[in-house]
Amino acid sequence: MPFGKPRGERADAVRNRERLLGAAREMIAEHGVEKVTMDGLAERAGLGKGTVFRRFGTRAGIFRALLDADERHFQERVLSGPPPLGPGADPVERLVAYGRARIAFLLDHHAIARASIERGGPVAAGEPSVSQLHIRMLLGRAQVRMPSLNGLSIQLTAALEGPLLLYLSTPEADAPPAQEVGGFLGDSWQALIERIVR
Amino acid sequence: MPFGKPRGERADAVRNRERLLGAAREMIAEHGVEKVTMDGLAERAGLGKGTVFRRFGTRAGIFRALLDADERHFQERVLSGPPPLGPGADPVERLVAYGRARIAFLLDHHAIARASIERGGPVAAGEPSVSQLHIRMLLGRAQVRMPSLNGLSIQLTAALEGPLLLYLSTPEADAPPAQEVGGFLGDSWQALIERIVR
Repeated sequence: MPFGKPRGERADAVRNRERLLGAAREMIAEHGVEKVTMDGLAERAGLGKGTVFRRFGTRAGIFRALLDADERHFQERVLSGPPPLGPGADPVERLVAYGRARIAFLLDHHAIARASIERGGPVAAGEPSVSQLHIRMLLGRAQVRMPSLNGLSIQLTAALEGPLLLYLSTPEADAPPAQEVGGFLGDSWQALIERIVR
Repeated sequence: MPFGKPRGERADAVRNRERLLGAAREMIAEHGVEKVTMDGLAERAGLGKGTVFRRFGTRAGIFRALLDADERHFQERVLSGPPPLGPGADPVERLVAYGRARIAFLLDHHAIARASIERGGPVAAGEPSVSQLHIRMLLGRAQVRMPSLNGLSIQLTAALEGPLLLYLSTPEADAPPAQEVGGFLGDSWQALIERIVR
């Protein structure tokens, strides 16, 4: 096998990555997250097992890569998509839209998010999340008067994402349907925002 | 060794448990959480290793038992201690006091709480937490008008405990001092409650 130029190798790597992520999405859509394995993914994408291991490291790494790609897409919709999620709407409307969109995103991705966690791995923490920074920005634009908008944005991020994480960690048999939960949490989020900004 | 009557055996078990928890508290106060081992605890309490294993199962089990005992004590202060944490004060004052006391409790117990988690163990979820039930009760008494006080109590519990869990999962070297964080989160909690009930 001839060695390409570095530039060519990088383009190859990008192509392989896209091909693997595409194959993983197909496998998830057809058979669910549980059925995705490193071997099955290599076969489906028509690539060597070594390529899959180099690219993702572990099975959880596949789901982390999928989640990263979708998270980037979500952030693009927030930063430059149509209002009210994207720029151009009133900041309070955007706060409400952000919460509803975020809840839907997390519910849609719960199987992938769960599969992306390495057992016994470290908890990601420390940096303010993208949600928190976005909520902080919109609270400032909405001219909400509070002693600390940083404090409020931390609390609101927890109020938005915490109940969802709790729901997603509940065994499926005991949990109400996702659609019901999404509607309830979306309405509660809107009520909370409207109460705080009034 | 003679077999005592069931009643006598149970009183023994309670005594041993108290003795072990007392010894564990002393060891933590003197040398910190890291130095508590099953063997060290048995020696300190003057009991057999078998008793310690039967009582707690694992090292993490020691810290869970300590946390349970302190959590019960905290709940007693809430249910029947002096106001404003206990009954007798205005519900809004009690909401503020509850948040501040809960923050202090979680900060005080963070080393024990961390040590009580079994690596790779299940995440406790599903049942509404005691915080959530208490906040729900006080919101009702404060006659807060919102579409769903259940939704609001879930959000407020997450807003109260989420930022703390995030802080406590940050590596110590990167984290601001607990006292500073406690003050900031307590003030933010009070501002949030006052905003919501006004």
